[in-house]
Amino acid sequence: MKALVYHGPGQKSWDSVADPGPTEPTDVVVQVDTTTICGTDLHILKGDVPTVEPGRLLGHEAVGTIVARGSAVTSLDDGDRVLVPAITSCGRCAYCKRQMPSHCQAVGGVGWIFGHLIDGTQAEYARVPFAETSVHRVPEGVSDEQVLFLADILPTGYEVGVRNGRVKPGDVVAVVGAGPVGLAAIMTGHLSGASRIIAVDRVQSRLDKAKEFGADVAIDAGDDVDARVAELTGGLGVDVAIEAVGVPQTFETCCRLVRPGGVVANIGVHGAPATLHLEELWIKNVTITTGLVDGTTVPTLLQLVRDGRIGPERFATHSFDLADMLAAYDVFADADKHEALKVVLRR
Amino acid sequence: MKALVYHGPGQKSWDSVADPGPTEPTDVVVQVDTTTICGTDLHILKGDVPTVEPGRLLGHEAVGTIVARGSAVTSLDDGDRVLVPAITSCGRCAYCKRQMPSHCQAVGGVGWIFGHLIDGTQAEYARVPFAETSVHRVPEGVSDEQVLFLADILPTGYEVGVRNGRVKPGDVVAVVGAGPVGLAAIMTGHLSGASRIIAVDRVQSRLDKAKEFGADVAIDAGDDVDARVAELTGGLGVDVAIEAVGVPQTFETCCRLVRPGGVVANIGVHGAPATLHLEELWIKNVTITTGLVDGTTVPTLLQLVRDGRIGPERFATHSFDLADMLAAYDVFADADKHEALKVVLRR
Amino acid sequence: MKALVYHGPGQKSWDSVADPGPTEPTDVVVQVDTTTICGTDLHILKGDVPTVEPGRLLGHEAVGTIVARGSAVTSLDDGDRVLVPAITSCGRCAYCKRQMPSHCQAVGGVGWIFGHLIDGTQAEYARVPFAETSVHRVPEGVSDEQVLFLADILPTGYEVGVRNGRVKPGDVVAVVGAGPVGLAAIMTGHLSGASRIIAVDRVQSRLDKAKEFGADVAIDAGDDVDARVAELTGGLGVDVAIEAVGVPQTFETCCRLVRPGGVVANIGVHGAPATLHLEELWIKNVTITTGLVDGTTVPTLLQLVRDGRIGPERFATHSFDLADMLAAYDVFADADKHEALKVVLRR
Amino acid sequence: MKALVYHGPGQKSWDSVADPGPTEPTDVVVQVDTTTICGTDLHILKGDVPTVEPGRLLGHEAVGTIVARGSAVTSLDDGDRVLVPAITSCGRCAYCKRQMPSHCQAVGGVGWIFGHLIDGTQAEYARVPFAETSVHRVPEGVSDEQVLFLADILPTGYEVGVRNGRVKPGDVVAVVGAGPVGLAAIMTGHLSGASRIIAVDRVQSRLDKAKEFGADVAIDAGDDVDARVAELTGGLGVDVAIEAVGVPQTFETCCRLVRPGGVVANIGVHGAPATLHLEELWIKNVTITTGLVDGTTVPTLLQLVRDGRIGPERFATHSFDLADMLAAYDVFADADKHEALKVVLRR
Repeated sequence: MKALVYHGPGQKSWDSVADPGPTEPTDVVVQVDTTTICGTDLHILKGDVPTVEPGRLLGHEAVGTIVARGSAVTSLDDGDRVLVPAITSCGRCAYCKRQMPSHCQAVGGVGWIFGHLIDGTQAEYARVPFAETSVHRVPEGVSDEQVLFLADILPTGYEVGVRNGRVKPGDVVAVVGAGPVGLAAIMTGHLSGASRIIAVDRVQSRLDKAKEFGADVAIDAGDDVDARVAELTGGLGVDVAIEAVGVPQTFETCCRLVRPGGVVANIGVHGAPATLHLEELWIKNVTITTGLVDGTTVPTLLQLVRDGRIGPERFATHSFDLADMLAAYDVFADADKHEALKVVLRR
Repeated sequence: MKALVYHGPGQKSWDSVADPGPTEPTDVVVQVDTTTICGTDLHILKGDVPTVEPGRLLGHEAVGTIVARGSAVTSLDDGDRVLVPAITSCGRCAYCKRQMPSHCQAVGGVGWIFGHLIDGTQAEYARVPFAETSVHRVPEGVSDEQVLFLADILPTGYEVGVRNGRVKPGDVVAVVGAGPVGLAAIMTGHLSGASRIIAVDRVQSRLDKAKEFGADVAIDAGDDVDARVAELTGGLGVDVAIEAVGVPQTFETCCRLVRPGGVVANIGVHGAPATLHLEELWIKNVTITTGLVDGTTVPTLLQLVRDGRIGPERFATHSFDLADMLAAYDVFADADKHEALKVVLRR
Repeated sequence: MKALVYHGPGQKSWDSVADPGPTEPTDVVVQVDTTTICGTDLHILKGDVPTVEPGRLLGHEAVGTIVARGSAVTSLDDGDRVLVPAITSCGRCAYCKRQMPSHCQAVGGVGWIFGHLIDGTQAEYARVPFAETSVHRVPEGVSDEQVLFLADILPTGYEVGVRNGRVKPGDVVAVVGAGPVGLAAIMTGHLSGASRIIAVDRVQSRLDKAKEFGADVAIDAGDDVDARVAELTGGLGVDVAIEAVGVPQTFETCCRLVRPGGVVANIGVHGAPATLHLEELWIKNVTITTGLVDGTTVPTLLQLVRDGRIGPERFATHSFDLADMLAAYDVFADADKHEALKVVLRR
Repeated sequence: MKALVYHGPGQKSWDSVADPGPTEPTDVVVQVDTTTICGTDLHILKGDVPTVEPGRLLGHEAVGTIVARGSAVTSLDDGDRVLVPAITSCGRCAYCKRQMPSHCQAVGGVGWIFGHLIDGTQAEYARVPFAETSVHRVPEGVSDEQVLFLADILPTGYEVGVRNGRVKPGDVVAVVGAGPVGLAAIMTGHLSGASRIIAVDRVQSRLDKAKEFGADVAIDAGDDVDARVAELTGGLGVDVAIEAVGVPQTFETCCRLVRPGGVVANIGVHGAPATLHLEELWIKNVTITTGLVDGTTVPTLLQLVRDGRIGPERFATHSFDLADMLAAYDVFADADKHEALKVVLRR
């Protein structure tokens, strides 16, 4: 089959490789019908993720069709159309039993293994371990594009931003960073009854997108964000501040924007420590959360998609044939220029 | 001043009575700018609520302007525009401290005292006890009609139906009874992320209203409701069934409609016991809740109104001058004929 | 091997039967080291559970040693000492993913299958389906007797009584019915910080046991229970009333004992409907819960046993060799006479 | 009357001052029967709290008897014995309604005003604002010493440590810092079912006290704390790490000790920022909380004291006559030398 192969920092190619088969009784193999590229794939290509070894097939999001099954798989059939999510769950370790497969002990202590510790989904076929506790059947009448982003960005924005942030009806929410994951937090923030959502970013086209996705107010990060938010909230600050960038500065902004009793929910992937102003925060009754997506809300999100409550297909700004993977990478790597959110690759 | 006086079962009149003044240091007196009539007022007039004595001024919902204050009132001023809610809260008894003023011990163990144990709001002026812990300032730019129904039906539908029912994103919710309180549960059910709301009633005009207020499916109570709901939910039943009628039959319907792990939230005012089929329910992991509104969510609902997330003014189907109180009663008492939801009386 | 075989109502024997082997890749087979008898087994023998067919080996609680494994089992080894709980969990159906294996769809919609829909644990060996998502390794240094009752009664009392009842620090709790499950609710009620626990039963020896297990007050059911509880709670009633009998009368008692805002948690297995006095309860802001044990708290309970916080071994009032199963049944069937709580059978 | 007067950094005296009277309708005046000294008082005397002006009477904890009441006070009587807590609650501002009087807007945005913004309780009499929403009647049969520490340290340890830390049955909890507030967290941690509590301090006498108060393991801060905790928790870390010191180093220790999915609850009063290692924490699904005590759990704690579940009187290591206030300060200021936890001053 053909697949996108990582050959070390800065090097990738669309190569012919061996077809995968089930190697464990709990595996399935899917034909990849639709996949996408994640910002993490770009980080890997920069060499930022040393646990990814050369030769690895990348990609951790797909909608596919089951074509082979291990001997222990009884609740899935060949021909089933499934969402393959970014996070693999063994279903039996202490963390999976606590609903936290992001730390699944059976797959190395981190639930994200596709395109990382094992071969991924930017390929014609993919082997899926612990399939029965990991994949989700796609409801009838729902398209691949409608559910593809439930593999990663939607549950990331919802679980790590909105749910960790305990967004509740009536809340004023700031989302700092209006890239795809920030937009996912905006889209799902309304599910939890947010009264007003304030987006902060430094790119105007992203702020425009934020408003399309449901932000009520968009603030340029170059403005005096603290003052603008104070003005919008009667001087109190926001109930929930969601960090969706991943640098110390935006995290510290969130800690200033939140009101007493509020929550800072960090989604960003950070490479450096931040300064935590405990001398101000100790008295403020605030909560700060971090997390990797678990994917435990995917069944809920699937239902909301099926019932038309959310429309994640609007993330798909560009479409390609699977074989045009390299062209898709070119567009996604220069997303601002192309006004791209997410690219979709179809078989 | 003029006021609606209850003279015993079947008897009411729009009379001249003495103006109220503050009698306790924690009282305020409001000029009633806008008020309404509740189904409970009709029950009182039928003689169903023996704790209401002849001579009582009725009404327990108003938007008004403060015209006098007791000596202890420091956080409210003359001229402040306030929502006077159905429930009075002393703020200091064990139940108020537990956020349950519906059982406020300082006002007789039941938070509903206006037009019940003390004179009410269907009058030109009203005395409001424990004002600072009970009333809510109306935000600027919000009309009386937009907030009037936050005095009772909106928080009733939201607190006793949606919140007690623990409606969460993705839930399928059945609302049995599409009168004003059932409609309030439908309107606020979407705030909590309900994926699908199924309304059940036996009056077609109410089912039509239910769909206008956000129900996705409307089922005639004369049909085989159990079968229709089973069909709509893959045989599982609903996550939350909200009872908004108040008779044993509809309560028992709710107990049949709910899936394992689901919740039956009773809002209805019941006059007779129901049969609880524990021989079926004991194994179903269900939760059943009851309750009177507390009004603790009014600040949240005010914010959602101000931000345009909910539009309770659509309950106001008919408007009258305050002086036309008796005509308003005539319309409200025959609501189905007039296709009336709520009447509004303005100074 | 030898096993206890059900031959239809009233008939059981300790027979030689075929040894079980793994039949599915996800099975293990355990040598039963320690097992017990449940009240449910007595119900089956009376013919009250028609889904149990003649020829079935009974029993659904055991501590055992793994002696064989299906091909998909990777996280358990031969020789591992495990707790086999009453509830089987496939780990992959919608209910197991919602942490509610009591309704596991893969094993027939009810998680209790041992000694019910498949052969059970009152035998020298037992086949255990979905082993990796169902069994629990026994921590080192903990005896069989210390964990055996975590197979059923401890998590039943804790999950269905204490946790469903939302017992929290400072609560006054009534436990109606002081049989083994009621005692388990008393023992675990203190884990959640109950301030005072009131036991109600009609057998004096059980009330004595209740006090040994941590009840602060023991009330004879023949007394005026309502009056005694009112006196003990300043007229308010209890925060949580736990029903651990299974008849309409005790359920209705619980509904009278609970204070506004409180919870009635039903554990009892009911065969007949109860009367629910909605005409009194509608206004009381109460919550009523039902449920079958899920066993999701077993890891927590294991830790508490290991750390010496609870001592479930005190339920073991009588011990037998596994081969003396019939004698053990005789004692357990006449528990009051023998002052028996639970019998333990050891290999 | 006599009172302890702050005369600027380093200066205090036991002076004759004017008796207080009620100045607002919602005030009461109490005769101080029992009071104590807090570490915060020592900070004030060092000049660390510039909002305290010279001439201020110090102290914010007392049990007293009501001797005068403002005109609006109806639910308290002269002669009532009450606990005067550190936090004043108006009961009517947005924060008090959200159960967060630590930020009460009516008293300056911070609920702690006694001995800070108004005169305090180290005096023969004290004026108590917003009395009906702030003080608690002491249950009969409970001594002053049993409830005095519910004014501050007990609810601080419980609310800000245990409850913010979401300690639940089975949890392993580390308490870093075994001064009075850390000991309060240990004492109340068992109320929430902690399976094991690990105390960390650098003073051996405090570690001894920690074990007396319920710690299972005591670790010297000079040892390799990370390694010891890893060893005790199978390499995972603790479920909850409670910071009760107030310096960056101990906060950072807590962030290293916590396991994925765990909580760091900060109680310490910090004067400098800490480094937050987001490059490690972003993926760990941790929650960090801060907070000042609200006192909303005092009714619960009073009930637990009355029922004998907790014994806060054991904090009282030294007793003095009220008139010997200066001697009491001498002992408390050199607590380690005197092995003092808390001093009690009695009328």
